[in-house]
Amino acid sequence: MPSSHAPGGPDPSTGTGQQTGSIITVDDPDDPRLSDYTGLTDVELRRRREPAEGLFIAEGEKVIRRARHAGYRMRSMLLSAKWIDAMRDVIDEVPAPVYAVSPELAERVTGYHVHRGALASMQRKPLPEPGALLSGAERVVVMESVNDHTNIGAIFRSAAALGMDAVLLSPDCADPLYRRSVKVSMGAVFAVPYARLDPWPRGLETVRDAGFPLLALTPDEKAVPLEAATGPAASRRTALLLGAEGNGLSTRALRAADEWVRIPMAHGVDSLNVGAAAAVAFYAVTR
Amino acid sequence: MPSSHAPGGPDPSTGTGQQTGSIITVDDPDDPRLSDYTGLTDVELRRRREPAEGLFIAEGEKVIRRARHAGYRMRSMLLSAKWIDAMRDVIDEVPAPVYAVSPELAERVTGYHVHRGALASMQRKPLPEPGALLSGAERVVVMESVNDHTNIGAIFRSAAALGMDAVLLSPDCADPLYRRSVKVSMGAVFAVPYARLDPWPRGLETVRDAGFPLLALTPDEKAVPLEAATGPAASRRTALLLGAEGNGLSTRALRAADEWVRIPMAHGVDSLNVGAAAAVAFYAVTR
Repeated sequence: MPSSHAPGGPDPSTGTGQQTGSIITVDDPDDPRLSDYTGLTDVELRRRREPAEGLFIAEGEKVIRRARHAGYRMRSMLLSAKWIDAMRDVIDEVPAPVYAVSPELAERVTGYHVHRGALASMQRKPLPEPGALLSGAERVVVMESVNDHTNIGAIFRSAAALGMDAVLLSPDCADPLYRRSVKVSMGAVFAVPYARLDPWPRGLETVRDAGFPLLALTPDEKAVPLEAATGPAASRRTALLLGAEGNGLSTRALRAADEWVRIPMAHGVDSLNVGAAAAVAFYAVTR
Repeated sequence: MPSSHAPGGPDPSTGTGQQTGSIITVDDPDDPRLSDYTGLTDVELRRRREPAEGLFIAEGEKVIRRARHAGYRMRSMLLSAKWIDAMRDVIDEVPAPVYAVSPELAERVTGYHVHRGALASMQRKPLPEPGALLSGAERVVVMESVNDHTNIGAIFRSAAALGMDAVLLSPDCADPLYRRSVKVSMGAVFAVPYARLDPWPRGLETVRDAGFPLLALTPDEKAVPLEAATGPAASRRTALLLGAEGNGLSTRALRAADEWVRIPMAHGVDSLNVGAAAAVAFYAVTR
């Protein structure tokens, strides 16, 4: 349903843009209104800037719609002309400015060729306290030191798809709202609520105190096979601890766990990749 | 246990190399003895060349050892100097020539910086017939049109780790022995036997005739939940059909199946990525 727009005409704030409804054509890559989108390929810079400035970037029509649907406020959109029709309903509904740019300008500003043609800068929401998150949850995943954006995104996608209720992250886990995490998760980072558990690993006590046995996923031979620790006889409330690809869980996290569980390995293979292991474990604890 | 070497001295075949045991130092990027390793980053070229010339490339110490352990014959190795000690036992055991090169030369020949420092050219083995493969198997995965090397590698790794007995591939699936597939699989492509099913999908009859019900994995609402189709009551012999990321199984493959199974989805997520879905399905059918 189209809403009414602010009247058209040139944008008085800089004099360089043209406004049609809330659509502002920008052709200067240094236009300060585009600053949310600058240097998107500079991971180090963006990792600092985005949480500090309270924003994150959603990329592509599907992910932008999912972020909106999850209640994130839109700060602005950056669209190439051919995406304006596809995003018309969103443009009409949100009060945020929409910057129409050429693909070349988008590339100069962001640092890469924006294949998906649509970017949105969204406002972060304050993270919930772990206790609040746990009160309504039954199956929880706790990640330690998963500092790779692709892995975080993949694990969120599986956690959401397989019905995990909440995610808790050690302080050194990667940001689920970083552009790459969001993209790999296909927006699932918006669907499952998450919080940071700080200090680490002492914060795990909050989880246990809330009535969740802590199951640590580890390839260690001394661990119980996953199927023996899950299934109908297991506690309805379960917190599953996952470590990073390669190193797995730290000794401190393993010590803090109530039980160690492992996915039995065949054919002499020593491990699954962390995404596959997480998916299998989520499937097992949610059946 | 070191074996005896061929006597040292300059290599008479080109006059450019020095031979130490079976180690030949090469400093000419156009040396024809390096032709197995040229243009490794040219995917299209290598996809044609490698099957035609009967070779594949194993990259990194672990993967090279796993290929040897699986009985593949080594044609040659390309090592930078610092890898010679680490690979000494392999060098001593195999009759294949070992080309010692500088990292710069390795990069000029292959087209990329060889981080892992060790490459081996291995001889392919003839693929088994599907019937022969199926005779000793219980849990089989059949892939249709999985033409992405990363996905093929990831699925093989999970198939091996979770105890699938064999893999069957439609004619348009990617090559499991392509360098990227091998690497992502961590060598699991050597651990699970595989064959091509040709013609497609008529070849599926071979699978059914061998006593395997065909379970097609699909997000279709009409499909049975995975847990209802697997578990102790299910047939010991099971062939699980997987399609590619995005498109999933073709209508023809779905029609050829005996039963459709789905992984129930939560939080409004429409799908798992193909690697996660495969891992979950393998776990379910092998319990």
